[in-house]
Amino acid sequence: MVNEAIPDIVVSRLPLYLQCLQRMKTAGVKTTNSQVLGQMLGISAAQIRKDLSQFGEFGKQGTGYSVDFLVEQLQQILQVNKIWKIAVIGAGDLGHAIARYGGFADRGFQIALVFDSDPQKIGKEAAGFKIHDTANMVEMIKTAGIQVAMLTVPARVAQEVADQLVKAGVHAILNYAPITLKLPEGVYVEYIDPILKLQRMTYYLK
Amino acid sequence: MVNEAIPDIVVSRLPLYLQCLQRMKTAGVKTTNSQVLGQMLGISAAQIRKDLSQFGEFGKQGTGYSVDFLVEQLQQILQVNKIWKIAVIGAGDLGHAIARYGGFADRGFQIALVFDSDPQKIGKEAAGFKIHDTANMVEMIKTAGIQVAMLTVPARVAQEVADQLVKAGVHAILNYAPITLKLPEGVYVEYIDPILKLQRMTYYLK
Repeated sequence: MVNEAIPDIVVSRLPLYLQCLQRMKTAGVKTTNSQVLGQMLGISAAQIRKDLSQFGEFGKQGTGYSVDFLVEQLQQILQVNKIWKIAVIGAGDLGHAIARYGGFADRGFQIALVFDSDPQKIGKEAAGFKIHDTANMVEMIKTAGIQVAMLTVPARVAQEVADQLVKAGVHAILNYAPITLKLPEGVYVEYIDPILKLQRMTYYLK
Repeated sequence: MVNEAIPDIVVSRLPLYLQCLQRMKTAGVKTTNSQVLGQMLGISAAQIRKDLSQFGEFGKQGTGYSVDFLVEQLQQILQVNKIWKIAVIGAGDLGHAIARYGGFADRGFQIALVFDSDPQKIGKEAAGFKIHDTANMVEMIKTAGIQVAMLTVPARVAQEVADQLVKAGVHAILNYAPITLKLPEGVYVEYIDPILKLQRMTYYLK
């Protein structure tokens, strides 16, 4: 890596670039450039060039980028050139939807363990995954060496479950519960909140 | 509004400010300032002051912001001081999770209609909402005057359904299907893609 202090806002755009490039790759596109990427993503070509240049020299003036090469490089930078095992905590509708979603593997992730605390659910299956008791969560996640978790539990228990996940060695939590988690340094959290996205659009509606 | 050409990146931060302020309000907090907001959100105080100043003068040097007043102002700016009716298209696990989620109303939204094309689901209920046939979607959405839709259908039909939504008068689509939608000018789309969030975190993992 060229520079250790890459701004987080730059990092946040890399998955978008990778997603776009992987679609191009699937479509058989061999080369592209920052103009084309920019148009597809609604980001300026200059911004894309500047972002990518923070990580190295990936293209040539006039020839653009090799799609395959840039996909590989971005996968490596984002560390998704390997498969991360994921624990899903909360086997409600949302947990089931996630367990059923088939698009994780080619983007660096794989559901490995599903947990719930409801005795009615424990031992049953969610989209082919056995639902385990959250009482065994810390031990099972530790043993499996899982670092990434998706939190789909009710808001009132989300902080408590997150604390346990940290104990289990989880370092990245994708939180669907509508609360802000307090987590120690070195544990990353991202939020999925559909209402933030909806409100961003209603601003523009007449 | 002070300025019509507010950058979209500024608009995208307003729902975060509103969410944070609404939590403060619920907790009984009366006044706050950009430092406190910044710490809660991981955004610099200067950025917050600059963003808010684009819409008017909301606080005083030294006294900060009135939480109630700023909540009201942001709700008005984002147009969520009214309730937007939402149509949910796709009554699978995810559609059910959304229909069941109780947190929409106090943030400006209300599920109004749920649709699916599966004869096994049509006529049944999803979290208390009758599941309607997508065959009647355009007409029903038009009649109800709905402008906002959440798209939780499989990727292969998402574009087709989105085209129909546009015909029905929908101007804002929150798309959960992992494809980029092509939509006419004046129709807004936002995406929920958990993998983009996961990849943003794996960058930082050791």
